[in-house]
Amino acid sequence: MSILAIGTVAFDAIETPFKSTGQVLGGSATYITLAARYFSPSVRLVAVVGGDFPDAYVETLRSNGVDLEGLAVDPDGKTFAWGGRYHYDLNQRDTLFTHLNVLETFQPVVPASYRDSRIVCLGNLDPTTQRQVLDQVDRPEMVVCDTMNFWIEHTPESLRETLKRIDCLIINDSEARELAEEPNLIVAARRIRAMGPDILVIKKGEHGAMLFMDDEIFVAPAYPLEDIQDPTGAGDAFMGGFVGYLDRTQTLDATCLKRAVIYGSAMASFSVERFGPERLLDLTDEAIYTRLQAFYHLSSIPSLVSFDGISS
Amino acid sequence: MSILAIGTVAFDAIETPFKSTGQVLGGSATYITLAARYFSPSVRLVAVVGGDFPDAYVETLRSNGVDLEGLAVDPDGKTFAWGGRYHYDLNQRDTLFTHLNVLETFQPVVPASYRDSRIVCLGNLDPTTQRQVLDQVDRPEMVVCDTMNFWIEHTPESLRETLKRIDCLIINDSEARELAEEPNLIVAARRIRAMGPDILVIKKGEHGAMLFMDDEIFVAPAYPLEDIQDPTGAGDAFMGGFVGYLDRTQTLDATCLKRAVIYGSAMASFSVERFGPERLLDLTDEAIYTRLQAFYHLSSIPSLVSFDGISS
Repeated sequence: MSILAIGTVAFDAIETPFKSTGQVLGGSATYITLAARYFSPSVRLVAVVGGDFPDAYVETLRSNGVDLEGLAVDPDGKTFAWGGRYHYDLNQRDTLFTHLNVLETFQPVVPASYRDSRIVCLGNLDPTTQRQVLDQVDRPEMVVCDTMNFWIEHTPESLRETLKRIDCLIINDSEARELAEEPNLIVAARRIRAMGPDILVIKKGEHGAMLFMDDEIFVAPAYPLEDIQDPTGAGDAFMGGFVGYLDRTQTLDATCLKRAVIYGSAMASFSVERFGPERLLDLTDEAIYTRLQAFYHLSSIPSLVSFDGISS
Repeated sequence: MSILAIGTVAFDAIETPFKSTGQVLGGSATYITLAARYFSPSVRLVAVVGGDFPDAYVETLRSNGVDLEGLAVDPDGKTFAWGGRYHYDLNQRDTLFTHLNVLETFQPVVPASYRDSRIVCLGNLDPTTQRQVLDQVDRPEMVVCDTMNFWIEHTPESLRETLKRIDCLIINDSEARELAEEPNLIVAARRIRAMGPDILVIKKGEHGAMLFMDDEIFVAPAYPLEDIQDPTGAGDAFMGGFVGYLDRTQTLDATCLKRAVIYGSAMASFSVERFGPERLLDLTDEAIYTRLQAFYHLSSIPSLVSFDGISS
């Protein structure tokens, strides 16, 4: 059992109508690994940071069980930094700045000890960089991939190449519509799966998530939260919970994938409860189990009484 | 068992990127009653039409089991008419015209034979008109109400009066946010229920529906449709399926209400498959039962394996 996650490890600066964080630990790989490590005994990170990356952040990841052999440090470079401001409804945000810094020249190197990873998790990055990781691993049982509108718009050819080499794509609904050039999500899902990934997960924020595999569609609710502090990283926490659960299971069948969507949804719901990845640092098994049970209760339909219409 | 539905019976003219209908039978009361009559043996309509309302439309309603004693005909007036054009994604529409005509002076008269109705269903109308119906019925077991942004914005005081007298409000998500002046739907739901209705259903179109009652939240998926012809009346068909199912049940408890949301969702999903109320005219019990079962399959989570975290 093992997960290799590539993505960003970053400095985030988050503003909401209620609070500004200043610089905090962020990045897709941070959220993915911090969520996955609750479920998988071996969570391996491939990313790059600059010489300015604090030891305390390294220790946060390490002490939470993330394998950091694949974390490259560029002593002369600066860590990737992102700043964003959320609108009042927390569903929309403006990017205030993006400093690629060490990401500009990032060439991922997968440590030999990571080559046998069971699940490879490609966080949101340049699709070319994502493929460079696939070139350096043996035969993962599953390759799960994220992307975003930037790559859909600016590197469509490269993204298509990556899509051919993955098993599962996890994107949000607006990205799915853009990638498929189709407003109807069900049609969009069919088109995207024809591009490569057999399995597609579409995240819809407050509206939950949808899983498409074989001839099945599974719809998962979002956990109803009255007090969302910070949506940053929710999608990555979803991915971490999703692959984390899958790494616990023997098989990767429909039943497991549906449960994985619920695990992902649960971790996303925790992530937004506090700023940055803070909430992912102190979860208990009991808190996770209670949240998972809440999902079952939320969408469980009382058994269907056989229906005889008024006409019969 | 009986349902009284008040609302509009109208001429609709619908344009989508794929088709224009010209004048077709429409209106909230039309969709509500045509959906409800699959489940309830007594569906009673209160509405007004003009002298121009064709006998063929009357016959459509009557032959489909709708009680028309409460359908007033103003021989000198013209029937309410609405025209709308849907955008490419079918989620947005522009109103092309609204001719209130006979609605401008509509004073609902509830026939004596309707006074004992078990469920009263207040379709989208002026909140004052909605209350006039409540003044003319005995003691319905449940009053279910719809409204829209126009009344939220233009007659807020009157709407508040109506909300105090109903048991269940069914509105869409943007209306819920506007009524509660709150972007978070969970918070909005709490505020709206404090205005009167113990039970709240929030319709979210392609994202399904949410039921709030007691301390429970229930989340229902939307049926995944690749080919939506015409969204007109989907919300009213939902209401019809919802009240139709409730009228079949002895009790109005949480279990029944959850099932009612699924029945409503199923009828809405049928309604959009063809233009106008056409699809609601020829459903079979078997088609309805198959659709209901599909909803169970869509959102049924494989049973939760007890969770032991990696830390334990």
